[in-house]
Amino acid sequence: MADTKALTSRAADFSAWYNEIIARAELADYSPVRGCMVIRPNGYAIWEQMQRALDQMFKDTGHQNAYFPLFIPQSFLSREAEHVEGFAPEVAVVTHGGGKELEEPLIVRPTSETIIYAMYAKWIQSYRDLPLLINQWANVVRWEMRTRLFLRTTEFLWQEGHTAHATEAEAEEETRRMLGVYRTFMEDWMAMPVLTGLKTDSERFAGALRTYSCEALMQDNKALQAGTSHNLGQNFSRAFEVTFQTAAGTLDHVWNTSWGVSTRLVGALIMTHSDDNGLVCPPKLAQYQVVIVPIHKSDEERATVLDAAVRLRKELAAAGIRVHVDSREGMKPGAKYYEWEGRGVPLRLEVGPRDVASSSVVLARRTGGKKETFPMEGLPARIAGVMDQFQADLLAAALARREAASLRGATKEQFIARMEREGGLVYGGFCGRGACETEIKEHTKATIRVLPDPEFRSPEVPSRCIWCGGPSVVEAVWAKAY
Amino acid sequence: MADTKALTSRAADFSAWYNEIIARAELADYSPVRGCMVIRPNGYAIWEQMQRALDQMFKDTGHQNAYFPLFIPQSFLSREAEHVEGFAPEVAVVTHGGGKELEEPLIVRPTSETIIYAMYAKWIQSYRDLPLLINQWANVVRWEMRTRLFLRTTEFLWQEGHTAHATEAEAEEETRRMLGVYRTFMEDWMAMPVLTGLKTDSERFAGALRTYSCEALMQDNKALQAGTSHNLGQNFSRAFEVTFQTAAGTLDHVWNTSWGVSTRLVGALIMTHSDDNGLVCPPKLAQYQVVIVPIHKSDEERATVLDAAVRLRKELAAAGIRVHVDSREGMKPGAKYYEWEGRGVPLRLEVGPRDVASSSVVLARRTGGKKETFPMEGLPARIAGVMDQFQADLLAAALARREAASLRGATKEQFIARMEREGGLVYGGFCGRGACETEIKEHTKATIRVLPDPEFRSPEVPSRCIWCGGPSVVEAVWAKAY
Repeated sequence: MADTKALTSRAADFSAWYNEIIARAELADYSPVRGCMVIRPNGYAIWEQMQRALDQMFKDTGHQNAYFPLFIPQSFLSREAEHVEGFAPEVAVVTHGGGKELEEPLIVRPTSETIIYAMYAKWIQSYRDLPLLINQWANVVRWEMRTRLFLRTTEFLWQEGHTAHATEAEAEEETRRMLGVYRTFMEDWMAMPVLTGLKTDSERFAGALRTYSCEALMQDNKALQAGTSHNLGQNFSRAFEVTFQTAAGTLDHVWNTSWGVSTRLVGALIMTHSDDNGLVCPPKLAQYQVVIVPIHKSDEERATVLDAAVRLRKELAAAGIRVHVDSREGMKPGAKYYEWEGRGVPLRLEVGPRDVASSSVVLARRTGGKKETFPMEGLPARIAGVMDQFQADLLAAALARREAASLRGATKEQFIARMEREGGLVYGGFCGRGACETEIKEHTKATIRVLPDPEFRSPEVPSRCIWCGGPSVVEAVWAKAY
Repeated sequence: MADTKALTSRAADFSAWYNEIIARAELADYSPVRGCMVIRPNGYAIWEQMQRALDQMFKDTGHQNAYFPLFIPQSFLSREAEHVEGFAPEVAVVTHGGGKELEEPLIVRPTSETIIYAMYAKWIQSYRDLPLLINQWANVVRWEMRTRLFLRTTEFLWQEGHTAHATEAEAEEETRRMLGVYRTFMEDWMAMPVLTGLKTDSERFAGALRTYSCEALMQDNKALQAGTSHNLGQNFSRAFEVTFQTAAGTLDHVWNTSWGVSTRLVGALIMTHSDDNGLVCPPKLAQYQVVIVPIHKSDEERATVLDAAVRLRKELAAAGIRVHVDSREGMKPGAKYYEWEGRGVPLRLEVGPRDVASSSVVLARRTGGKKETFPMEGLPARIAGVMDQFQADLLAAALARREAASLRGATKEQFIARMEREGGLVYGGFCGRGACETEIKEHTKATIRVLPDPEFRSPEVPSRCIWCGGPSVVEAVWAKAY
């Protein structure tokens, strides 16, 4: 039976609301294994839609998928000094296999740079083998102390791209290209606006030259790092001796990039769009974009209405729309509406005997619109239009929300006050000193999310550091973050 | 540069041939981690095609995907007595996480019955929650002593279906249904004929009531277990207390099934169709179904020919054909033919200046046909037809090969002689005694692959056990196996 208790509101307790949304929509569940989640069918269906879209974008930009081992010899992790320092504290270690203690313990991959570049050393000989553009869909493990469903779990699913190039410029171009792919995916598919830009050294990937990030602002005004793209320079190719013969006949180390997004995006989607009635899912990523609820009293009505519902389903499915008829018996239409609302289905069609008689249907949007009556004739095209509008409305609403929570040109005091109260994004000048960055974090709990790319910078270039008042070398965006 | 050394022939050394096929086509590679393979892009592309087809078949039969943890608490494995006995010797064990020794070691899943049914116990309350039909695409780990690329590796990729039903009959129906799905996939997509049937107790899945299997015969006349479907009865639901309230109001344990196929299928595909020139891949699962090789001498010719090749590519792609133009410079057409042959591309189109002038192309099949000239006009439909024929020819050839290697109505001596020399399948009566089964295995190295389903049984029902001469209770099929 459906749980009919109202959800905790976002205003009352955002964190409780988030967990309840997930439980109500049956997206995920806690498992008996500490820190590990179970992704339930409704949640996995969203991840599958995400995978499908991203995978096509990766292939369209010339990448191929491959699969590398789950286990990494412990010694591999140590070869890149920063990398081991960053990941060693959070790894899971296999010490026994086949009933015996292993000579060298194996690490369960927290990320695959080391094992992948060890293989690249074998595969790459000449400039003709470059660029090598590979992506992997995989599970990874990072031992986390405090976990939250989708956002931070010991095991999570992700994709990691790993490329090798002949020149530094090509590697930088690839790093930026994939950041752009992520941004496009997040805006066009997730309807989630993001800021892109460079991370400061303190937030840089362990072993990277430069890390770029897509940052989104959740409804509780905390930022979430939604995807990162790293220019690894020659750090790993030196550690793993990935060399190639150049066109000129000399020997050089390759230039690498890596980039990834994870099931964390499902959490980002939830916290961007959902409301106090449950999940809100953008049509492009919804398992079902349309659910049809037949309404009837007598058995005769039931036959007529179900017949019409099935006909509509076929028409919509033929037009590529993901549609489901909820023909469950012994359940009132209102209870069905309530359940599908909690599950975030974008559009609901109600079909009753009078609708069938007048060849029309009643359409309800999950958010942002009243019920409307449409003729059955030409419904697929109309539904497609409503979905496009719904998708656009979600993005516009999220963008408006983010901008309303963005503060530009603030003083130090305003910055502090903002972080103490409503949170959100604060744009300001930055002197570039790590000491200032640390002090800000200690005082406000805010970190620099990105040094924003040109298109996200403030119209007026800040001249002074928002904290110390010294000369600003770059604009930064601060927020408290997940 | 392409490796131009001839492959070891199947006749000379089947095992060396198999490894060389994989190396030549760049399907997989050994990794620095003992027993773990790397699936390279060309191999992974075949697995992706397999996944896509199977996933659709699972969804068409009402299943949804989900994801369960990689790790299983050690105590879970022990709850089902046969299960722990079967799997405990081959597990990898995580003893440390986040820098500390764990209180309870974690097993890296060798299969997920235990963790999944622990969750089902939480999700299932009433008969209304049944059937629960879930599939998972995942990596699993089984510590193997002797490994072979794709066929037997410590880590492999697979799917595992796990379902729960209200009655024994429904569980049996599901077990058989999914065996049928596997058979359809193997025949229609892999062009690989299989025998289906029941496993004897000695080959039954650890914890199952009954195990059904799809068995294929490789070109070296050894059998390969290509997929299994298990009726688990109430063994796991009792161990994990998965109960439900029946429609009558009583409490009962659910009836479970599980079923899986793995990346082993890529190995099966290789050993079913490939020849001494390299990989042969059925069109339905090929990364590229058609490769277009432009032939030209002068720069002027090059422009004309490439132009035509790109036009053809667009036409074929628009018709849903996976096509690639090999426009690499500095490489002779013959070298390209050789490379694509090794990679198993089903069809090759050669386009030279004379072809362009006469609006025709030359088509070469990877196997089983001479070069033919076709008009460019209407090419997509013609190519689709040739692919269908190629796919059908592969299945017919594999079936003919298997039947030629099948012996029916043999005496014990003929059975022994067959297993000593050419191998293959031997059909015969079986008394049903484990002692006979063991003795046969010791003498001939052959095991009972299946007790074949009715459609695979010999026309004449054997009356005597092929080994002991006692009354036969069932027909069995023996073979040496991978």
